[in-house]
Amino acid sequence: MAHIYYNSWMERYKFPFGAVKEGKRVDFWISVPSELETSVFFVVRKEGSSIGKISFPMNKAEEDRYHYQYKVDQGSGLYFYYFKIVHFCPDGSKRTLFYGFDGQGGEGKIEHQEAEVGSYQMTCFEKAEIAPSWYREAVFYQIFPDRFANGNPNGEISSPKKNSFIYATEDDEPMYIRNKDQEVVRWDFFGGNLKGITQKISYFQELGITALYLNPIFEASSNHRYDTNDYFAIDPVLGTEKDFVEMLQALHEAGISVILDGVFSHVGRNSRYFNQAGLYGEKEGAARNPDSPYYPWFKFNQYPNDYEAWWGVADLPEVDKNNRSFQEFIYGDVESVLAKWTTIGVDGWRLDVADELTDEFIGGIRKNLLGYQDKILIGEVWEDASNKIAYDQRRRYVFGDHLQGVMNYPLRQQIMDVLNQTRSFEKVCQEMIRYQENYPEDFYYNQLNNIGTHDTERILTMLEGSIDKLSHAWGLLFMMPGIPCVYYGDEAGLTGGKDPENRKFFPWQNVNQRIYTSCKTWIQRRKKYGSMKYGEFFPVYSLENDIFGIIRYNAEEYTVYLVNVSDHSRKIQMEDLASPRQYRGEYTILQELSEGIELAPHQEYFAAKSLVE
Amino acid sequence: MAHIYYNSWMERYKFPFGAVKEGKRVDFWISVPSELETSVFFVVRKEGSSIGKISFPMNKAEEDRYHYQYKVDQGSGLYFYYFKIVHFCPDGSKRTLFYGFDGQGGEGKIEHQEAEVGSYQMTCFEKAEIAPSWYREAVFYQIFPDRFANGNPNGEISSPKKNSFIYATEDDEPMYIRNKDQEVVRWDFFGGNLKGITQKISYFQELGITALYLNPIFEASSNHRYDTNDYFAIDPVLGTEKDFVEMLQALHEAGISVILDGVFSHVGRNSRYFNQAGLYGEKEGAARNPDSPYYPWFKFNQYPNDYEAWWGVADLPEVDKNNRSFQEFIYGDVESVLAKWTTIGVDGWRLDVADELTDEFIGGIRKNLLGYQDKILIGEVWEDASNKIAYDQRRRYVFGDHLQGVMNYPLRQQIMDVLNQTRSFEKVCQEMIRYQENYPEDFYYNQLNNIGTHDTERILTMLEGSIDKLSHAWGLLFMMPGIPCVYYGDEAGLTGGKDPENRKFFPWQNVNQRIYTSCKTWIQRRKKYGSMKYGEFFPVYSLENDIFGIIRYNAEEYTVYLVNVSDHSRKIQMEDLASPRQYRGEYTILQELSEGIELAPHQEYFAAKSLVE
Repeated sequence: MAHIYYNSWMERYKFPFGAVKEGKRVDFWISVPSELETSVFFVVRKEGSSIGKISFPMNKAEEDRYHYQYKVDQGSGLYFYYFKIVHFCPDGSKRTLFYGFDGQGGEGKIEHQEAEVGSYQMTCFEKAEIAPSWYREAVFYQIFPDRFANGNPNGEISSPKKNSFIYATEDDEPMYIRNKDQEVVRWDFFGGNLKGITQKISYFQELGITALYLNPIFEASSNHRYDTNDYFAIDPVLGTEKDFVEMLQALHEAGISVILDGVFSHVGRNSRYFNQAGLYGEKEGAARNPDSPYYPWFKFNQYPNDYEAWWGVADLPEVDKNNRSFQEFIYGDVESVLAKWTTIGVDGWRLDVADELTDEFIGGIRKNLLGYQDKILIGEVWEDASNKIAYDQRRRYVFGDHLQGVMNYPLRQQIMDVLNQTRSFEKVCQEMIRYQENYPEDFYYNQLNNIGTHDTERILTMLEGSIDKLSHAWGLLFMMPGIPCVYYGDEAGLTGGKDPENRKFFPWQNVNQRIYTSCKTWIQRRKKYGSMKYGEFFPVYSLENDIFGIIRYNAEEYTVYLVNVSDHSRKIQMEDLASPRQYRGEYTILQELSEGIELAPHQEYFAAKSLVE
Repeated sequence: MAHIYYNSWMERYKFPFGAVKEGKRVDFWISVPSELETSVFFVVRKEGSSIGKISFPMNKAEEDRYHYQYKVDQGSGLYFYYFKIVHFCPDGSKRTLFYGFDGQGGEGKIEHQEAEVGSYQMTCFEKAEIAPSWYREAVFYQIFPDRFANGNPNGEISSPKKNSFIYATEDDEPMYIRNKDQEVVRWDFFGGNLKGITQKISYFQELGITALYLNPIFEASSNHRYDTNDYFAIDPVLGTEKDFVEMLQALHEAGISVILDGVFSHVGRNSRYFNQAGLYGEKEGAARNPDSPYYPWFKFNQYPNDYEAWWGVADLPEVDKNNRSFQEFIYGDVESVLAKWTTIGVDGWRLDVADELTDEFIGGIRKNLLGYQDKILIGEVWEDASNKIAYDQRRRYVFGDHLQGVMNYPLRQQIMDVLNQTRSFEKVCQEMIRYQENYPEDFYYNQLNNIGTHDTERILTMLEGSIDKLSHAWGLLFMMPGIPCVYYGDEAGLTGGKDPENRKFFPWQNVNQRIYTSCKTWIQRRKKYGSMKYGEFFPVYSLENDIFGIIRYNAEEYTVYLVNVSDHSRKIQMEDLASPRQYRGEYTILQELSEGIELAPHQEYFAAKSLVE
């Protein structure tokens, strides 16, 4: 019985790997060696379907292998399956076993009770989300606009907000200014602005950046601007609409695309729409006038001071995404928010807190964007987007015509766990492959990968200040499927813990050249080697948890990256390296590797080999 | 017995009024009407004298009045006296009574036990502190330099301090940036500077200001700069030493004098002298090097982190004022702090927390200043400086060769109590006369009067926002003996509660013209009428607590100010008005007044009359 075996990550057992398009057929094999008479069933259930669970008898294919070809014919969504094995004993009794998902994926485990068996997930999508090539080939750079660069002649602050604070010097440590109840009472600004971004185009070009992801830039009260006050206005601290158009043109001329942060779940309490403090007029806005056209956007428990707010944060009144007029306003109208900025030339959107938006709302945005050429729509989802449940609902992010990809937040923890040796490399690899399996292939390759954002501690700090480790983190980031995104300043050596320490001003006078160079080297590799962008993904690791690597390959080329994360020298050979997935590529480089290479402590190895003459 | 009467404020009973110079003779009379045989004694004791209490028998002068002429011959200091009355009854028994100070002054009260009787204070001074005439005739203006004016071309901040905050707009509400323990963690700056002061000279001239009192301007960490870091440097946020010299020259050319805030009780924890954070070098300063020349200035309970600090505020390590090297440093040396800035042209000093400085230290400073022409030295003393006890010691501020005057802090409360009708006018007048009695005459006239400073709520706020009341406050301020000082922005309509609300930036775009005009009118009167500067002082009030007034007079002129602080119209005649002091002047105007004038609610009356043709 120990030999019953199935592995969803090996093509000997499941073909094809991963998610499938609806209507496709998938072959399943399971090994059930037994001297007893045996029946094996493929048990499958489409989530949300009225048909319920169906057991398909599997055919004995060869020796101990049973086969069933399943046609994924109940439409897009999540299919859950496991195997049922019935042994008929000579005494006429039956022994029934179940084989299913073990929590990690790939190999599964046997249970004796059907109630105990875990189900494998098989994702079925409607549409392959092939992203525009500018996106798939991009090297992104995330900018928190207040903290990047000030383009004014004397560094003065454009239109500073009344009752806000300006940092005295660009070296200052960011901080929140809170009252005794820990509420932010004044917002703090360094005064980075759009002209500053425009002025740094040569910096982006030098580094190799081809796309920017900007944190919010619309008029707001705070420095992060997730509390939108006016969706149709550039925040005056950042500049004017003219500055924005000029920035966009200049970036486009330099071959750099721009995506914006779309914050549509909530607005600012002092927005034009809610207008609590009356900044937009005495009788305007939902909080001051129940006859306001914006009134139906909000849910008041008791008018006007008790209202639904994002995570209970009174600063951020929540908007009813089912409200028709709000939908029209954001994306439905020819004069919608999305239409305005996309028409001006924005190349895509990153939807903030996508979980808080309904599928209908996200679908509506996507539909709007389909009216333009080569736009991209990704979402902020922190967990597995294929099976995410938000508000008791499975979400349709990945199935097509919703999001094209998500921010790959789990990657950062995976990379930190490898470099700090804080999780078994086997577990890290399993998690990586699980995401790959659950996401439709294009969706998977459309992820925007990062090793840090405005929401997380600076990667250099999490890597204990080690520049070696940071170099390895670049390596893993740039080797991963998905689009790499550098959080501003990570390439310059910025450090810091959680927000606000992770939002220091860019150290223009003090860029760490070693870090900058390692980042730039990886950007160049990424651009040079197609396999790093489009190739198959094959993570490898040593069981001793000291060597970790990624192999990317396609028909033309291999790229291999290995790093010795330990404090001792290591001679590695190919056979020392495990992987949870079956390697399907050629072995040219790996054969070189199998002769053995010596890696000093914290040394890395990168090699690329073309397979075409 | 009800007719026993003495009143130290009436020349029929004590002559001369008030404090006396040592060696002078003072006449005392007391009324003791009695049909019994009576002995009356003048009982006096010089504080600190080994001679102790002496009883002088008084002579029966006329009818029921007893007289004694006392020669104040035990040197400068405080003399305390009362009267002892012994009645001899026909049956041979004696009845002894005591008459002394009742807590208010002027009239006293009878006690039956000697232990119960209060003593009148008589101040004896060594030297009349005749101030330079520029000072006595001045109209002062107090400037909190960070909050007054920015003289840079684009309003940029000069040399902003690392990890400090700049207010976004000049309209911002000041606030402290504190941590959970309520410690200030970042200092906040508007960025007012010395060039700003220089640029506003025409404003001072237009208003009629002839002297400035500047809050500290030496290098410090905070915005108030009471935490001196370097006594020999202008704070870079305020400008350079060159800016200071230019400011001083320009002010002097415009006929405007300047006094500085001398903060010698403590220094900043990050001063050149203490250097806790090492900003002045790794091994410099008392907190980092026990061999530092500054080490003996401080008292460490446990080196280096537990040290004596002003009011326990760790930011402000206290200096040992008895330390010879510190004395030399501040005032004793040809290259002392005082010498440097006074030589450059500063016209005087206001000693911060004078109570914390020893008499020797203050005397040393005064002696240094005597080496220059026409300098002034005043002190921050919040109570009656004549009998102030600090650290168990009576202080010698008023006796000569120490302070020439003090900031008159009690005046503000007196004026608020009158205008808000929160204290009986009789009590207010008694308090006013008590100070006048206790202070040597010149010292009294040298007080720097204010109705608000950086340490108190804005006067307009305390007067409930009433511009009428503020106009009356100007009236009382400018009518009082002493030198009037306007706290920057009070004349422009600034409001606010306690620190930091009382330190808003000067509202250059929004000066309240009514308030400005009333202030300017009073400044012009003060300049025009000598009696308002040098004249005798005679406060008057109605027993109904609705009319309050001040009469000033000299041989050439009268000035009279009356205000109806109530909500009803009032016809007043001279006989309606009481005063705790005996009026010795002419009656020309008062006779006009005695015909009666009608004052509408909150109406004021000002008249001046020359007595010479």
